Amino acid sequence: MKKILIIGIGAGNPDYITMQAVKALNQVDVFFILDKGPAKEKLTRLRKDICEQYITDPNYRVVEATLPERDRHQPDYDQAVGDLNDAKQALFAQLIRDEVAEDQCGAFLVWGDPSLYDSTIRILDGILAADGPVFEYDVIPGITSVQALTARHKVPLNQIGRAVEITTGRRLLRGMPEGVDSVVVMLDNNNAWRQLPDADLSIYWGAYIGTPDEILISGKLAEVGEEIERVRTAAREANGWIMDTYLLRRES
Amino acid sequence: MKKILIIGIGAGNPDYITMQAVKALNQVDVFFILDKGPAKEKLTRLRKDICEQYITDPNYRVVEATLPERDRHQPDYDQAVGDLNDAKQALFAQLIRDEVAEDQCGAFLVWGDPSLYDSTIRILDGILAADGPVFEYDVIPGITSVQALTARHKVPLNQIGRAVEITTGRRLLRGMPEGVDSVVVMLDNNNAWRQLPDADLSIYWGAYIGTPDEILISGKLAEVGEEIERVRTAAREANGWIMDTYLLRRES
Repeated sequence: MKKILIIGIGAGNPDYITMQAVKALNQVDVFFILDKGPAKEKLTRLRKDICEQYITDPNYRVVEATLPERDRHQPDYDQAVGDLNDAKQALFAQLIRDEVAEDQCGAFLVWGDPSLYDSTIRILDGILAADGPVFEYDVIPGITSVQALTARHKVPLNQIGRAVEITTGRRLLRGMPEGVDSVVVMLDNNNAWRQLPDADLSIYWGAYIGTPDEILISGKLAEVGEEIERVRTAAREANGWIMDTYLLRRES
Repeated sequence: MKKILIIGIGAGNPDYITMQAVKALNQVDVFFILDKGPAKEKLTRLRKDICEQYITDPNYRVVEATLPERDRHQPDYDQAVGDLNDAKQALFAQLIRDEVAEDQCGAFLVWGDPSLYDSTIRILDGILAADGPVFEYDVIPGITSVQALTARHKVPLNQIGRAVEITTGRRLLRGMPEGVDSVVVMLDNNNAWRQLPDADLSIYWGAYIGTPDEILISGKLAEVGEEIERVRTAAREANGWIMDTYLLRRES
């Protein structure tokens, strides 16, 4: 039976990798390294660095492919994501069918954790449900950018006994979620926090967290909001891309 | 200057530890191993196992102490937690003052991640704000039981583009949170999910996740709810304690 591993490799810092992931890397015959967009070259390099650093037997193959991207002209976001996942599923099925022999182990390396805003689990389930190539698979958790953010800011994610919501920039445009005082925002390309009444909110913002380019800013949103926007724009221009996330907190 | 490390050691499986945590463990002169309750002996043993497994130079000290516990007769929960944290702060301050020399490194080992339902960051900030012993500290993230749960069930935490709430059993007694279709529940001693209308909810439940005693059950809440309650009660009786968490999902 073919074996596939979905390995969470953590968020940015190669030291975020777990011992479980290191052991998993060392079982793999073929790695699928799939990236896209302006950060593709840098992210692919980082994945290869992780393989070279932690794999003791260099007897493995790397298959690179370019991930399909979401159609930004499709006005229905869910439809666009659905189409994207169909295209990814076809690509992943082809890779597993053509590149992994019956007794071999293939692996997808996922930034952060495979369960959080990543589609690999869903795609492999889709292949298995759709009579694609047959395989068994396992999931190896990894440190998310949420955890890297709070660790670097040295701040708890939740207030005592309270709840936390993890959401997207797109959803934050509708306002702060009800009933929670701590909200982590991911996948925000448009500074959605600018839309919020900022009087009683604090923000803990980080970009390129855990890497040498890391930037951290925190404070009352009313006081540091403009600075974050300015720094974020400059960093994205300088690097050609940005990966950032933030925690919003209503202090009780 | 004294240095203190708050090291997330992951949830249960010793392989969940990160390379960053392993490097951190190897810098430490004195470990504070603090547990409580019926699982104290087992948890203390697991922490010592992690130290023995990953530390190359055995030239370190271990200081054990019993954590104070929340007063379960105090009707005001926030007050009880506040009192508990005051007692912990006094204990931690004493340990840092008495057990860590000026040029030494002390460490607190935290199950899961120090940012999620853990008070160590808050307590160290409290000591520094209260003119206690002076030190600098760093936070090392770790794999949470949330990530272990989703990895073992091979299930995404969020639905596509949707939000996730992480909350407590105590809060879930008020009902499913508004506006989210994925809710992770931690610290639930009383099967709070039993209070929910279960018609359209699925549950992914796990106990002792990542350990040899791991139990996983998932399915429609209406179909597996009774089984989970029965298995949970039996496991708690057999082991004397239980650590469990679950994901509730309203399928869209």
